[in-house]
Amino acid sequence: LRQGFAEVVFCQGKTVEQVLAIMNRLAEYNRSILATRATREMYEAVRSAVPDAQYHELARLITVERQKPAVDNERFILVMSAGTSDIPVAEEAAITAEIMGNEVKRVYDVGVAGIHRLLGQRQLIEQANVLVVVAGMEGALASVVGGMAAKPVIAVPTSIGYGANFGGLAALLSMLNSCAAGVGVVNIDNGFGAGRLASIINHMR
Amino acid sequence: LRQGFAEVVFCQGKTVEQVLAIMNRLAEYNRSILATRATREMYEAVRSAVPDAQYHELARLITVERQKPAVDNERFILVMSAGTSDIPVAEEAAITAEIMGNEVKRVYDVGVAGIHRLLGQRQLIEQANVLVVVAGMEGALASVVGGMAAKPVIAVPTSIGYGANFGGLAALLSMLNSCAAGVGVVNIDNGFGAGRLASIINHMR
Amino acid sequence: LRQGFAEVVFCQGKTVEQVLAIMNRLAEYNRSILATRATREMYEAVRSAVPDAQYHELARLITVERQKPAVDNERFILVMSAGTSDIPVAEEAAITAEIMGNEVKRVYDVGVAGIHRLLGQRQLIEQANVLVVVAGMEGALASVVGGMAAKPVIAVPTSIGYGANFGGLAALLSMLNSCAAGVGVVNIDNGFGAGRLASIINHMR
Amino acid sequence: LRQGFAEVVFCQGKTVEQVLAIMNRLAEYNRSILATRATREMYEAVRSAVPDAQYHELARLITVERQKPAVDNERFILVMSAGTSDIPVAEEAAITAEIMGNEVKRVYDVGVAGIHRLLGQRQLIEQANVLVVVAGMEGALASVVGGMAAKPVIAVPTSIGYGANFGGLAALLSMLNSCAAGVGVVNIDNGFGAGRLASIINHMR
Amino acid sequence: LRQGFAEVVFCQGKTVEQVLAIMNRLAEYNRSILATRATREMYEAVRSAVPDAQYHELARLITVERQKPAVDNERFILVMSAGTSDIPVAEEAAITAEIMGNEVKRVYDVGVAGIHRLLGQRQLIEQANVLVVVAGMEGALASVVGGMAAKPVIAVPTSIGYGANFGGLAALLSMLNSCAAGVGVVNIDNGFGAGRLASIINHMR
Amino acid sequence: LRQGFAEVVFCQGKTVEQVLAIMNRLAEYNRSILATRATREMYEAVRSAVPDAQYHELARLITVERQKPAVDNERFILVMSAGTSDIPVAEEAAITAEIMGNEVKRVYDVGVAGIHRLLGQRQLIEQANVLVVVAGMEGALASVVGGMAAKPVIAVPTSIGYGANFGGLAALLSMLNSCAAGVGVVNIDNGFGAGRLASIINHMR
Amino acid sequence: LRQGFAEVVFCQGKTVEQVLAIMNRLAEYNRSILATRATREMYEAVRSAVPDAQYHELARLITVERQKPAVDNERFILVMSAGTSDIPVAEEAAITAEIMGNEVKRVYDVGVAGIHRLLGQRQLIEQANVLVVVAGMEGALASVVGGMAAKPVIAVPTSIGYGANFGGLAALLSMLNSCAAGVGVVNIDNGFGAGRLASIINHMR
Amino acid sequence: LRQGFAEVVFCQGKTVEQVLAIMNRLAEYNRSILATRATREMYEAVRSAVPDAQYHELARLITVERQKPAVDNERFILVMSAGTSDIPVAEEAAITAEIMGNEVKRVYDVGVAGIHRLLGQRQLIEQANVLVVVAGMEGALASVVGGMAAKPVIAVPTSIGYGANFGGLAALLSMLNSCAAGVGVVNIDNGFGAGRLASIINHMR
Ligand SMILES: Nc1ncnc2c1ncn2[C@@H]1O[C@H](COP(=O)(O)O)[C@@H](O)[C@H]1O
Ligand SMILES: Nc1ncnc2c1ncn2[C@@H]1O[C@H](COP(=O)(O)O)[C@@H](O)[C@H]1O
Ligand SMILES: Nc1ncnc2c1ncn2[C@@H]1O[C@H](COP(=O)(O)O)[C@@H](O)[C@H]1O
Ligand SMILES: Nc1ncnc2c1ncn2[C@@H]1O[C@H](COP(=O)(O)O)[C@@H](O)[C@H]1O
Ligand SMILES: [Mg+2]
Ligand SMILES: [Mg+2]
Ligand SMILES: [Mg+2]
Ligand SMILES: [Mg+2]
Ligand SMILES: [Mg+2]
Ligand SMILES: [Mg+2]
Ligand SMILES: [Mg+2]
Ligand SMILES: [Mg+2]
Repeated sequence: LRQGFAEVVFCQGKTVEQVLAIMNRLAEYNRSILATRATREMYEAVRSAVPDAQYHELARLITVERQKPAVDNERFILVMSAGTSDIPVAEEAAITAEIMGNEVKRVYDVGVAGIHRLLGQRQLIEQANVLVVVAGMEGALASVVGGMAAKPVIAVPTSIGYGANFGGLAALLSMLNSCAAGVGVVNIDNGFGAGRLASIINHMR
Repeated sequence: LRQGFAEVVFCQGKTVEQVLAIMNRLAEYNRSILATRATREMYEAVRSAVPDAQYHELARLITVERQKPAVDNERFILVMSAGTSDIPVAEEAAITAEIMGNEVKRVYDVGVAGIHRLLGQRQLIEQANVLVVVAGMEGALASVVGGMAAKPVIAVPTSIGYGANFGGLAALLSMLNSCAAGVGVVNIDNGFGAGRLASIINHMR
Repeated sequence: LRQGFAEVVFCQGKTVEQVLAIMNRLAEYNRSILATRATREMYEAVRSAVPDAQYHELARLITVERQKPAVDNERFILVMSAGTSDIPVAEEAAITAEIMGNEVKRVYDVGVAGIHRLLGQRQLIEQANVLVVVAGMEGALASVVGGMAAKPVIAVPTSIGYGANFGGLAALLSMLNSCAAGVGVVNIDNGFGAGRLASIINHMR
Repeated sequence: LRQGFAEVVFCQGKTVEQVLAIMNRLAEYNRSILATRATREMYEAVRSAVPDAQYHELARLITVERQKPAVDNERFILVMSAGTSDIPVAEEAAITAEIMGNEVKRVYDVGVAGIHRLLGQRQLIEQANVLVVVAGMEGALASVVGGMAAKPVIAVPTSIGYGANFGGLAALLSMLNSCAAGVGVVNIDNGFGAGRLASIINHMR
Repeated sequence: LRQGFAEVVFCQGKTVEQVLAIMNRLAEYNRSILATRATREMYEAVRSAVPDAQYHELARLITVERQKPAVDNERFILVMSAGTSDIPVAEEAAITAEIMGNEVKRVYDVGVAGIHRLLGQRQLIEQANVLVVVAGMEGALASVVGGMAAKPVIAVPTSIGYGANFGGLAALLSMLNSCAAGVGVVNIDNGFGAGRLASIINHMR
Repeated sequence: LRQGFAEVVFCQGKTVEQVLAIMNRLAEYNRSILATRATREMYEAVRSAVPDAQYHELARLITVERQKPAVDNERFILVMSAGTSDIPVAEEAAITAEIMGNEVKRVYDVGVAGIHRLLGQRQLIEQANVLVVVAGMEGALASVVGGMAAKPVIAVPTSIGYGANFGGLAALLSMLNSCAAGVGVVNIDNGFGAGRLASIINHMR
Repeated sequence: LRQGFAEVVFCQGKTVEQVLAIMNRLAEYNRSILATRATREMYEAVRSAVPDAQYHELARLITVERQKPAVDNERFILVMSAGTSDIPVAEEAAITAEIMGNEVKRVYDVGVAGIHRLLGQRQLIEQANVLVVVAGMEGALASVVGGMAAKPVIAVPTSIGYGANFGGLAALLSMLNSCAAGVGVVNIDNGFGAGRLASIINHMR
Repeated sequence: LRQGFAEVVFCQGKTVEQVLAIMNRLAEYNRSILATRATREMYEAVRSAVPDAQYHELARLITVERQKPAVDNERFILVMSAGTSDIPVAEEAAITAEIMGNEVKRVYDVGVAGIHRLLGQRQLIEQANVLVVVAGMEGALASVVGGMAAKPVIAVPTSIGYGANFGGLAALLSMLNSCAAGVGVVNIDNGFGAGRLASIINHMR
């Protein structure tokens, strides 16, 4: 278990049987397992075989965590979301980072159209060691946070929104155009990838 | 002359001769004329026939203004740009609004990656009667300003930038996704359209 | 309550429980509330707790309106739609403007392919103080109306149509190309944003 | 020579020598030749060998016409353009139709943002046997004309414009969405194709 | 009833009740009615009120035809489809043309990958007065037929296919690039528009 | 030298000096060298150091061939182009295949809009061991040839054309949709890749 | 039966009845039949009439194989997939190749992010006579395998993935950019086309 | 000077005079300055006023570095490029990181189509503290390196290439799809942003 890294299963596109079989096998030898994009049905199947598995409905994650990794509480990852509907992806990032041995704080629903709510979080933003910014309709948030934080920002565009957001493309492009501010971008809706990258960075000494 | 509206000529795609002929004809009966996307060469030709024509290099505008329209100084239009390279489009909007009889104030180079510079302009933003926000790499600016201002915001994406800005598409999509904040969007690089729409709104009583 | 502006809830991506909780809280202290993109199921839940809530099926809006805002009947907003199937988005704009304290008139089903029906509405178009043009397959309508009206036009592309409309992209691009005519564009299907921007402009003095 | 159809050469992507050789060969046996997308340099080369060749600067066409085809003056093709900068493509269509034995009338610069200028041409529009509508920034024109005319309309999007016209894409999509009104669309900037299709239709009995 | 043109209703995006009401009203005064994109449910409702209405399942059309229009059997429209799955759109075009008073012949399932089957239809292709070519995965068919026929070809891209056809975009672009061969293109899946344009052309004298 | 494969240099994006240095080094130990996308200026520099280097203007290739590879004349590769302007890319493929030890035949300018010229080449098409089809405005050609040939077809879209060809995208999509006919596609304008893949296949025993 | 080629039916977009009728007719005279994109329901219908038909659930194929074609076991086709969810498309390719008379080996789940698992298959990659590489999220795999193998590689992008894979577009573009390495690309999700092209190449002598 | 961070000027879209004025002003009070996207002409102007300014031709950077920042040689940033033509962007990243106080190593021209050259660098890849991967035609490289390295990878797509790379879009999408492997992506051609983000991460303790 390197730096609190769990074994990871990507459930989308797999059958319940496939997920069950993989989890079963992993559960024999691993202290921590993470299964992403898991349905509740998959979880029900897994739980009967791996009783200590837990389900995180919103984040669509199954976790098995048999021994808490040592966590450095001084260095926390701050996960932020612009809208309420971006929270599932934000939670995927947050829980991923937690199971990989990080202290995580959350600040949700701080869109830039209400800049004062965001500024109200300035202290947390400045204290965070790594930041994850999740947004679908307000890719702008990554630029603003990137400008406020001196630490690395991982931006996650989401497919949430309608019309000219084109499945997350608008947020993606918006975030890429703010890279000068210390921002790196991951795939649309890829909360897991963001959480993992944030964790890698947060473990650097 | 309705509400200070000038006659307008769109020079792009016209020959120097065509521009000259049109300007010449308009100059006979109009108190104010505006020619957009004009080259210096076009201006040189026009000036020989219409000596009171003026050229605005940065904004690529030729103007003829024989009688200043009455201007209500209480109600000003605020034209903002995110970057230095967005200024030509911003100037196109500003001068368009001025020749149509508006008081215009300018705040340039206030990108969201440096949010404090923007917040430093809060008072102007709150006092403005109409706002024009011009940005190529930071479409985000429209959302933030839209959230700060209670008055209408006209957003102008520009084609300035590189890479994933895709000729202004990134800024355009970013601005469209912030419409909830009282923002209306015009075509990429369309400073003229923004200035004119701002002027129409600024003349409402 | 500034200028008849209601509190606004965006229901899409929220659970019935979340919507109920927010509406409940808002209903304690607000004279007018607007919930957009609300399903009938959400409304049923809200009504049991907030009995004076109303549902606008077509527009997918829940409204609470305890005290009619003062309305200036002289200055009306004209909401126009090109096709019958654009009416839901048009209604979202119209009712949003009404609850924000505006007189609203509606002219639906006036596509440009039958230009004479549109010309038959010339008088209304010229009298309106602000215009909202909603169209999915005939983005052209915004250009034509923009040319007929001296007042600001808010154009709303809709995702209605098929084939090469590409989810509203065709209407969006078409509308953006007509910005010279005093037209500002909002996001695809964003009736709410259009209604709100129209209201802001209509309250200008 | 079927129905006044000329031999046609597509010059773009050919060298001056290649164009000269082809024109020379064709000039031996043909009464009428049309070369599209020809530069003046190509014309100069051709003229030395084929002295009766003519150059149409705006339309970038070289024509050789040794015997006027019989033309039915009762049935004319109406070529319309929305903007001044669309005229080159419109001329390509018009001259193509003329050399193929058609009476052609032209109505240029009748954009929909000034609907009254367009309506002033109603009689011509109703009398025309086939219509060609050329537009870059106002694809809308095809819809409006399609609605006014009972005869077939050939729509030609042009790449003229800027910003969100995306090289003619906006006009193309806009025109495709108006097909119900008796409109068929050809490739962006394809004046030749439109002129030829109009000619084929105009010769139908 | 001009040239056998029926009244036309576009059902998509309308409720069963709306369709019923419109059809009922039209049925009082019209000899022929066409309703496109109609579901069977809509038809059941209409039939109870308009007993002579007929349903064309594949083409999703409701027709009322009280008096056969005079048809010129010498001049037929040839409707061709590349694949079996393009037939619904082809039928929409064919039946539209029939109710508008045209003789229609059909040649389906003649893709270009089996060029000999297509060449086997050469005689019909040369005899047809107008041709409609419908294809989703083989936009190529329009080019080939355009080259074989001296008469106008209306090309209809369909959204049928998968992968890189991108909802009909591949077929659309492919067809637009063949415009030199006397081809005009209508919107993706717009069988109705193609049938109507073909009918207009077929009635020319 | 495996199967006549030459060392390959990609010159685009390299300076004249870089190309010279690489060619010089390769020329010491290799019997055959191929440099693609080379300008004449690069060739002039190379020739002074490597006197037996040759330049193929149209194909933009520099070749050094010190010992003709053994060629099986029974199995030839047929390189076809739809238009005259596609010939440079076709030549890149043809010469690449030749220097890699293949017999190559060429059939150029056989677009599908003139299907009979193409059918006139039926015998060659049936005899070829591998086929390369190069087309910009008539991606359709790949489908038709794919249907006529029983052997593998390598399709090369080119960026030649205008309007809705979108830099080769139209041809690319068109070719991808014909894969059932035994067609594999390479990148837009990648004559080299096509020639090399054709050579690999042609050497199979 | 040329080189083990089966008759092929494309079931998508056909009704169960149509599939049944076609299969019934083909089953009378053919030794081997392949039906692609078939649902289980289609298979149930076919089996009652053609009892020796078999269903391949994952690959969505119905096969009838009455006489095994002679297979050259020395020359095998290697079908590789990057992810587990790409296996259905990979199986479509593999079974297509088998029924066309080829020895097929499979290596699944060898993404490039775990390059060592891929390198572990080096021997198979070097021994294969033709390779099929199937990938949705890791189009990169085609480049890497193309670099390792001296034999032709057929790349199949899949629509599997999320976010910025845009329905397979990302994998498609990625694969096209690796064509220099001896790679030809087929349509997104077109396992059948890849299997057939691989078979054609594998039968070359 | 925080962590060796220099003042940064973005020269693109600025005039020589503007760049000179800014540099002059910054040179008074700063120990290190970085100007990106600078032309040689800009440098010549700057040098006359700021004699210790240096120009990095390939990277298009002007640097002023008056006091070397303390550098931790144990923790180096590894900058990798897939192709020779990607080197300018790679150098922009490398020099940016150096002036911000980092030890930088370079490994250029290690595309995945020659996987063994890449594997030959395995030790450096495993020792690096942060990695920057720059690629235009082989976005694949980011996935492979991401899989080999346990440390954070910053991926920079470049606009280098042709055809279906679509100005860097292909590389961008390819890189985004590999985010699971600990990869964050910056804008196309944004070497500066990558170098800066890498530096921020490399300074974490
Ligand atoms: N239909 C809509 N489209 C876009 N924005 C909306 C819409 N409805 C409400 N909003 C915005 O969303 C905000 C409320 O979001 P929330 O807090 O998630 O309910 C409001 O202040 C509005 O600015
Ligand atoms: N401007 C044009 N756009 C599209 N196709 C054209 C154009 N001009 C000529 N063509 C077509 O190109 C063919 C001649 O091509 P070529 O043999 O290369 O000169 C003619 O038969 C026309 O069908
Ligand atoms: N025109 C071309 N298009 C794509 N790839 C090419 C081309 N020419 C050469 N290549 C590839 O580029 C490699 C050489 O690249 P370089 O080392 O940069 O010269 C060769 O091995 C070929 O695989
Ligand atoms: N090559 C670049 N790409 C993107 N952003 C840059 C680049 N170079 C500098 N910047 C950013 O642009 C800001 C300076 O912009 P300006 O004030 O216009 O010179 C710097 O603080 C950087 O964050
Ligand atoms: Mg920062
Ligand atoms: Mg606001
Ligand atoms: Mg107006
Ligand atoms: Mg009409
Ligand atoms: Mg033809
Ligand atoms: Mg074949
Ligand atoms: Mg290879
Ligand atoms: Mg890694």
